Amino acid sequence: MMPTLVNEFNEYRERMNEVILSKKNLVMKRLWNLDTNAYEEGALDKKTKEMLGLVASLVLRCDDCIKYHLGKSFELGVSTEAVYEIFAIANIVGGTIVIPHTRRAAEYWEELQKIV
Amino acid sequence: MMPTLVNEFNEYRERMNEVILSKKNLVMKRLWNLDTNAYEEGALDKKTKEMLGLVASLVLRCDDCIKYHLGKSFELGVSTEAVYEIFAIANIVGGTIVIPHTRRAAEYWEELQKIV
Amino acid sequence: MMPTLVNEFNEYRERMNEVILSKKNLVMKRLWNLDTNAYEEGALDKKTKEMLGLVASLVLRCDDCIKYHLGKSFELGVSTEAVYEIFAIANIVGGTIVIPHTRRAAEYWEELQKIV
Amino acid sequence: MMPTLVNEFNEYRERMNEVILSKKNLVMKRLWNLDTNAYEEGALDKKTKEMLGLVASLVLRCDDCIKYHLGKSFELGVSTEAVYEIFAIANIVGGTIVIPHTRRAAEYWEELQKIV
Amino acid sequence: MMPTLVNEFNEYRERMNEVILSKKNLVMKRLWNLDTNAYEEGALDKKTKEMLGLVASLVLRCDDCIKYHLGKSFELGVSTEAVYEIFAIANIVGGTIVIPHTRRAAEYWEELQKIV
Amino acid sequence: MMPTLVNEFNEYRERMNEVILSKKNLVMKRLWNLDTNAYEEGALDKKTKEMLGLVASLVLRCDDCIKYHLGKSFELGVSTEAVYEIFAIANIVGGTIVIPHTRRAAEYWEELQKIV
Repeated sequence: MMPTLVNEFNEYRERMNEVILSKKNLVMKRLWNLDTNAYEEGALDKKTKEMLGLVASLVLRCDDCIKYHLGKSFELGVSTEAVYEIFAIANIVGGTIVIPHTRRAAEYWEELQKIV
Repeated sequence: MMPTLVNEFNEYRERMNEVILSKKNLVMKRLWNLDTNAYEEGALDKKTKEMLGLVASLVLRCDDCIKYHLGKSFELGVSTEAVYEIFAIANIVGGTIVIPHTRRAAEYWEELQKIV
Repeated sequence: MMPTLVNEFNEYRERMNEVILSKKNLVMKRLWNLDTNAYEEGALDKKTKEMLGLVASLVLRCDDCIKYHLGKSFELGVSTEAVYEIFAIANIVGGTIVIPHTRRAAEYWEELQKIV
Repeated sequence: MMPTLVNEFNEYRERMNEVILSKKNLVMKRLWNLDTNAYEEGALDKKTKEMLGLVASLVLRCDDCIKYHLGKSFELGVSTEAVYEIFAIANIVGGTIVIPHTRRAAEYWEELQKIV
Repeated sequence: MMPTLVNEFNEYRERMNEVILSKKNLVMKRLWNLDTNAYEEGALDKKTKEMLGLVASLVLRCDDCIKYHLGKSFELGVSTEAVYEIFAIANIVGGTIVIPHTRRAAEYWEELQKIV
Repeated sequence: MMPTLVNEFNEYRERMNEVILSKKNLVMKRLWNLDTNAYEEGALDKKTKEMLGLVASLVLRCDDCIKYHLGKSFELGVSTEAVYEIFAIANIVGGTIVIPHTRRAAEYWEELQKIV
C-alpha cells in the first residue's frame, strides 16, 4: 500500500505529465526521453546514477525532483545511512538553505519505508 | 468567472501587496513601478515582453512570477502552442529542475482557459 | 499565545529536525552546531547577524530560512521599518523574483506581532 | 572580419565542443541536438526565440550563453534598442546581480557591431 | 594609491556603465538610481546596509558585486574581523560553493588595505 | 609533472586558503574541516562521494569546485567514461547553462591526464 504523501506526489505528477504531453511539443517529449536515458546503466550503475540525481536535486532545492529520486533510490535498495550521507554532502555543498528541503526529504523517505 | 486557482493567486497577491505598500518603504514602491514600466510597449511590443518575463520566471523557478506572466500572456492572446514553445526553451536552458514548475504552469494555463 | 502560522512552522521544523538527528549523521549534526555558532555575538552583534541571515535567506528565496530569521529578528527587537529596509535591499539585489517571498515574509512578520 | 572577443569565444567554444563530442556520450550529443531544435521556427519565429534564450541566459547569469544568444540575435537583426529592453527586463527580474553580466554583454554587443 | 586589482575593477566598471547609460534605456537608469537609494541611511545606517549588500552578494556568488560592497565597507571602516564574520555567515548559509568567491573576496580585501 | 592549468588552480587555492585561515575565524575553519569529513569513507565509499561532489558542483556551476572534485576523482581512478556520464546527468538536471562549465571541466580533465 502506498502512503498518502507518496500517492499524492505520483498522482499529480502523472496527471500533469499527461496534460503537457497532450500538447505534442516535440522538444519537451524528447527532453523527457533523454532524462530517462541519462539514468540508465552505463559505466556507472543505476544506483549510483540515482544517487547523483538525488544530490543534484537537493543542492538545486527542487522538492519534486528530490521526491522522484528518493523513490527510485528506495526501489533500488539505497540504505538510510547512504541517503543521509547524500543529505550531508548536499548540505555542506549547498549550505543551510538546503535544510528545509532536507526536512521534507527526510519526511518523504520515512513515508517510503511504509510501502508494503 | 474566475477559476479557483486563478482567484486564490490574485487575492493573496493583492492582499499582501497592500500590507507591503502600507509600510511606505520608498525603494519597494519605486521598484514595483519600475517593474510595470519594464513591460510597457517600446522597441518590443507588450506580448513579446510578457513572453520574456515568462521564460525568465520559468528558468528562475518562481511559481508566482510564472502565474503572473501566464495571466498577462493569456490576456494578450498568446497561443497555447507558443506557451509550450516557451516551456520547451525554459526546460532546455534550465534543465529538468524546471519540470515541476512546468507542471504547475501547465495546470494554471488550463485554469486560465476556463475564464469567461 | 503563538499565532497559527508561527506555530505550524515551529512544530514541523522541530518534528523533522528530530527525525534527521535520530539518524546520527555526524556531518549534519556538526553543521547545525556550526550554524548556531555563526550567529553568536562576535565583532558583530547578534541583531546585525540575524539581519545578515535574513537578507541572505531572502535573496536565496528560502521561505523557511526567512521565517526562522524573522522570528529571531522579532525576538531581538528589530523594528518593522528596519525589516522593510532589508526587504528592499533583498528585492534590489535579487530582483522581482524575490517579491513572492517578500509577500510571505510580510505575512509572517504580521503574524509575529500577534505573539503575546 | 571578426573582432578579437568574438573570435576568442567562438574558437574556445568549438575546440572544447570537439573534445566533449569525441567522448561519444550519447546523452550529451542528443541534448545538444535538442538545444538546436528548441530555437527553430515554430509558433514563435527564430528572432523571438533567440530573445527568449537571451533573457533566460541573462537572469541565469551565464556569460557564455549570453554571448552565444547575442551573436545569434545580431545575425537575425535584433536592434540595439530591443537588446537593451531585454537587458532591462533581465535586470528587473533578476536584480542588480545581473548588472556585471550586463556590462560584459554590453561590451560583447559593441564588439559584434564591428563585424564586417 | 590604488592597487592594480582595485583599479582594474573600477575602470572596467565605469567604462561599461558609460556604454550602458549612453543607450538611454530608462528602466536601466532608474534601477541604478534605486540601487543607490537602497543603501542610503534610514532606519538602518549605511554601514549595516553595506554589510547586508555584501552578504547578499556573497551567497549569490556575484564577484563584482562582492568587490563593490567590499570597497564601500572598507570606506565606511568595517573591520577585518567583521568582514570575516560576514564571510562565515555567507559560507554557512550558501555552502562550500561560496568558498571560491570568498577566496577572491579575501584577495580583494587585502588589496584594499594597500590604498593610501 | 603538473600541467599549468592544474598548477595554477592549486597554487591560487592554497595561497588564498592561507590568507583566510590566518584571520582565525573559527566558523570558517570548522566548516572546512566538516567539508573534509563529508567526503570520508562511510556507508558510501570515497569514490562515490567525490562523484556526488562533482555533480553537485556542476549543477551549481562552481568552476573551482568542479576542478577540485575532478582532481580528486582523477586520483581515485574514476574513468573518463564515468566522468562524462556525470557531465551528462548534470547537463540534463541543470540544463544547457551547465554547458560552458562542462567545457571548462572537459579541458581540465584533459589536463589532469597529462600528470606523470
